[in-house]
Amino acid sequence: MTFKASVLTLYPEMFPGALGLSLAGRALEGGTWSLEAIQIRDFATDRHRTVDDTPAGGGAGMVMRADVLAKAIDHTSPPGDLRPRLLMSPRGRPLTQARVRELAVGPGVVILCGRFEGVDQRLIDARNLEEVSIGDFILSGGEPAALVVLDAVVRLLPGVMGNAVSGEEESFENGLLEHPHYTRPQEFEGREIPEVLISGNHKKIAAWRRAQSEALTKERRPDLLGAHPLLK
Amino acid sequence: MTFKASVLTLYPEMFPGALGLSLAGRALEGGTWSLEAIQIRDFATDRHRTVDDTPAGGGAGMVMRADVLAKAIDHTSPPGDLRPRLLMSPRGRPLTQARVRELAVGPGVVILCGRFEGVDQRLIDARNLEEVSIGDFILSGGEPAALVVLDAVVRLLPGVMGNAVSGEEESFENGLLEHPHYTRPQEFEGREIPEVLISGNHKKIAAWRRAQSEALTKERRPDLLGAHPLLK
Repeated sequence: MTFKASVLTLYPEMFPGALGLSLAGRALEGGTWSLEAIQIRDFATDRHRTVDDTPAGGGAGMVMRADVLAKAIDHTSPPGDLRPRLLMSPRGRPLTQARVRELAVGPGVVILCGRFEGVDQRLIDARNLEEVSIGDFILSGGEPAALVVLDAVVRLLPGVMGNAVSGEEESFENGLLEHPHYTRPQEFEGREIPEVLISGNHKKIAAWRRAQSEALTKERRPDLLGAHPLLK
Repeated sequence: MTFKASVLTLYPEMFPGALGLSLAGRALEGGTWSLEAIQIRDFATDRHRTVDDTPAGGGAGMVMRADVLAKAIDHTSPPGDLRPRLLMSPRGRPLTQARVRELAVGPGVVILCGRFEGVDQRLIDARNLEEVSIGDFILSGGEPAALVVLDAVVRLLPGVMGNAVSGEEESFENGLLEHPHYTRPQEFEGREIPEVLISGNHKKIAAWRRAQSEALTKERRPDLLGAHPLLK
């Protein structure tokens, strides 16, 4: 069964972009997933093909119109389409690997690429859009974020990465940052691979990696440990 | 002064990608910033152009070699180059808008696109790489994350977005998610624009937006309020 991705955007030329190469590109060619990029502007109704207007109540920037977007969504994802509809937005809930996994076992995804100034709230409500953020920073539009979501999902589709995925997933699922990696050469600019890693003692290696992961997580991401600074 | 971005990758064809269009694309053509994509494989020393090897101590996946990457970095960013060197990695510190702003006022950036399995730790240490994560999810490689970083930075370069940026920045800086937006038409599928927004009373509008922002942030991102669930 093909995973079907539809992206609504003002810049359809941005797709497939990086997703047309490497693993995702081969899976796209092989039919593991499909991708259509829909030009929102095609659903405008005036001769200037207007998709936005000034914000009600004043303020900077422009807001994407509910009526134009509704037409684009209804065309792309008619009633009965079971695919979730995401709106890429810094207001959204942060994307997690758990949500990526859910998406990857579903029929596909519809992604609306918003502009920062925003999308009319009535459209979000009326079409049940799931607002998703990839982080606390501001992009020029939702398109780079959509590429990220699709890349994360596509690599989990059956056959795309093969067995390589399972190990990584577990590593991420334990809620810790990854331990450091080393490979040949044995010596690099006077720096050696840590001795434990070439000891052949698998139990010691596992314990060392776990300790490294814990220390790194504590240093960089205490939030992942559920430890709030005030509770320490 | 041109902002100079150098990306080290196994997939240089992924660049400029989405960054060649829209605002970033026009700024690239206009010389506000420059972008070079360096093929890491060109710095391999064997006839198979090998860039990775199996992890010391065992485990799934492959690790990118310190010696090959060091050659690529030294070629791209020789001593005296003041640009920060980022390594896109889920182990990194989360990207923030504050870091984006810092990068945008600097001379440029060197970005190494890692693979998930990782990069030899000795390279990270020896070349002082700043590990940066765009979120708690796994990508096929660092390339989509690099596109995100560059998009976020380039829009802040002088002249790229004009005055539109300042308002957005402030809105994000107050540490709250954005309030809902509305625009014409006044009625959409029986839903009206909230009355306060068409009242013309700017004080009331500002108060309403603030209250909406606070409520949304409390619901979706209590972490931004510094409120830990256990402390409520």
